Amino acid sequence: MSDVIATYLVHDAKGDLHKKAEGIALGLTVGSWTDLPLLEQEQLKAHKGRVIEVTELEECEKTNHYLGKKVTKGKIKIAYPSLNYSHDLPAILTTVFGKLSLDGEVKLIDLEFSEEVKSSFPGPSFGVGGIRETLGVYDRPLLMSIFKGVIGRDLTYLKDQLEQQVLGGVDLVKDDEILFDNLLTPFEKRIRTGKEILQHVFDETGHKALYAVNLTGKTYDLKNKAKRAVELGANVLLFNVFAYGLDVLQSLAEDKEISIPIMAHPAVSGATTASSLYGFSSSLLLGKLLRLAGADFSLFPSPYGSVALERDVALGIAENCLMEDSIKQSFPVPSAGIHPGLVPLLIQDFGIDSVINAGGGVHGHPNGAIGGGRAFRAAINATLSGISLKQAAESDENLKLAIELWGAKEVHK
Amino acid sequence: MSDVIATYLVHDAKGDLHKKAEGIALGLTVGSWTDLPLLEQEQLKAHKGRVIEVTELEECEKTNHYLGKKVTKGKIKIAYPSLNYSHDLPAILTTVFGKLSLDGEVKLIDLEFSEEVKSSFPGPSFGVGGIRETLGVYDRPLLMSIFKGVIGRDLTYLKDQLEQQVLGGVDLVKDDEILFDNLLTPFEKRIRTGKEILQHVFDETGHKALYAVNLTGKTYDLKNKAKRAVELGANVLLFNVFAYGLDVLQSLAEDKEISIPIMAHPAVSGATTASSLYGFSSSLLLGKLLRLAGADFSLFPSPYGSVALERDVALGIAENCLMEDSIKQSFPVPSAGIHPGLVPLLIQDFGIDSVINAGGGVHGHPNGAIGGGRAFRAAINATLSGISLKQAAESDENLKLAIELWGAKEVHK
Repeated sequence: MSDVIATYLVHDAKGDLHKKAEGIALGLTVGSWTDLPLLEQEQLKAHKGRVIEVTELEECEKTNHYLGKKVTKGKIKIAYPSLNYSHDLPAILTTVFGKLSLDGEVKLIDLEFSEEVKSSFPGPSFGVGGIRETLGVYDRPLLMSIFKGVIGRDLTYLKDQLEQQVLGGVDLVKDDEILFDNLLTPFEKRIRTGKEILQHVFDETGHKALYAVNLTGKTYDLKNKAKRAVELGANVLLFNVFAYGLDVLQSLAEDKEISIPIMAHPAVSGATTASSLYGFSSSLLLGKLLRLAGADFSLFPSPYGSVALERDVALGIAENCLMEDSIKQSFPVPSAGIHPGLVPLLIQDFGIDSVINAGGGVHGHPNGAIGGGRAFRAAINATLSGISLKQAAESDENLKLAIELWGAKEVHK
Repeated sequence: MSDVIATYLVHDAKGDLHKKAEGIALGLTVGSWTDLPLLEQEQLKAHKGRVIEVTELEECEKTNHYLGKKVTKGKIKIAYPSLNYSHDLPAILTTVFGKLSLDGEVKLIDLEFSEEVKSSFPGPSFGVGGIRETLGVYDRPLLMSIFKGVIGRDLTYLKDQLEQQVLGGVDLVKDDEILFDNLLTPFEKRIRTGKEILQHVFDETGHKALYAVNLTGKTYDLKNKAKRAVELGANVLLFNVFAYGLDVLQSLAEDKEISIPIMAHPAVSGATTASSLYGFSSSLLLGKLLRLAGADFSLFPSPYGSVALERDVALGIAENCLMEDSIKQSFPVPSAGIHPGLVPLLIQDFGIDSVINAGGGVHGHPNGAIGGGRAFRAAINATLSGISLKQAAESDENLKLAIELWGAKEVHK
């Protein structure tokens, strides 16, 4: 069958999960069933939603108390025939979670796509492999840093910040997601300037890095803007996909003329993932769907900082970014609260096919962004060589300073 | 000042709401402040977010228990200078609720726009006034009904259903939001067929009605598809805006060639509005932002059905659809669970500038959709004439049957 199978976490006050599941399967497809004449049942059979699984889960007293009613917690899986919708994410999401999103305590936790449906989603254009090729880095996590405090600043300020970061040995620098097109640092000028700096550092040091410029503006201007960015030599597009729509990301990724990787930022996504009762699971939205829609990188809160996801949630996103599939892999980018002392833990949790991404952990280093980047690179080298950070810090001043400032989380295997 | 002012409902474990507010105001604008040299403070002053209000609210034991921590509940208002972002919704939402949406228990409950910022949002092209003119109906709520069980059905089936509904006296009929482009009832054929039926009923009875066709497909195909719909004589576009993005709606509404009203469906919006701790408030998303982005109609769950909003939430949406403003009004369309017996309550709650919208309450009538429509029209007439439904039912068989089936909620003033 060519289906999309949706898994929901439900908290149902009526207590009959099988009945609820049947109601969803019919309500979101053919509407009614048992009262239809046999001939019509025959005609509609191929369009009817099917309940695949109903599992009652352990009751949660906290949730009952919070909702002020006794609810039955359960997991429901329903298959929606691919005949019913066009094979684009707006149609699929409207089918499986349109009206249903408004109907009480229901959270969409997973979607499984048949190969036929999936063939409409090309996934990342570059993916983990393509980006590693671009950078020539194959055997370690990538290192990324973020511009800091750039609102209201001019190009010179950005230029210096970019240079410092790249000189520290980071592989990628991303724009601040709240930096839009503006008079002080307009989009095209940022690209040109970024290119110059990266070239300059490469000429001086042989270190190659990429700059992810924030693609912003009105939806229907984005494609031309992205193509212009490519013409000007942009390396990567940063994109606040959840302020636009997953299908917009997909259309950008599918456009052959937009021939550079896309980095998806999770801005605004917390509005739909934070609740345990409603919305989308993070692993589905930031992992599976972003990858399907073509994100080469998926940023999400790491489990370590103040803006944090629970560890299993963050790992679930990364898993969906990387799991065996017919489409390319997205780079998981656990972000926020990252400093060099966390590198062993990051590599243990997320493996080498991930991006280590830091803002304060680079810029806040006593030797500035150069020192921060170098401390991270030293921590990555040490970890991959099986050397403790403490030991590595003995011969690396930047790592030593970082550890003195932020501490180090050694991992014992 | 040309600001956007955001109001947040926060539940904060650290307990110092003023500090939290300052952290947000800086974190989402210039980054840091007190440690900056005076000269830089001068340079960045115009870009700095400002805390406008911090109000501590009564503690909620249920929430503490649910979150497993003691939290301080409060309302925080922050002004974001319009210098910082381009004046489009993706940039504004990323600024005021990008990273912040991922940062604990924060719900965005309102946005206020300066006139300067608002001038980038033209609002509905037709609005309440324009739609009333199109229909020639000025003195009562409009009546709308919905196609039912149309997936897997052919054009003849839709045609008959449309005819029955319109003959009953409804002003508008909308597509099922889960009906996408499909082989049995393709978009263009639906428009052509709909037009024929509406013309036919008008010729026979003099009753004018509009058909809202579901605009679906890939984001970057929507404009051409909408223009083609207009060419073919479509009356209204139904649009699952939350499966796409608010800015997509705005771009459709702004396009002069897409010269018909747009009806925004709330599909998928529950994912971001249902939680009391996270996401967007319904009045902001389904009321203010839809109107700003150009929705001529905003559908949302009524307070009366099984898929229901709390009454004050539903009224809050309607209030934002209609409140005095420089842009046109959107028609509030409280939906789900509506039958003729609820008309007095609907008119009391939502006034005459609203759309009474029913699915089962039209189709499930003992005399079919014609009877359902007529019962609604009789209920509307009675209510506006100050006659009780019970009394009106004495001389109206359809209303009588409806009340026998679903009951009547009389309103005593």
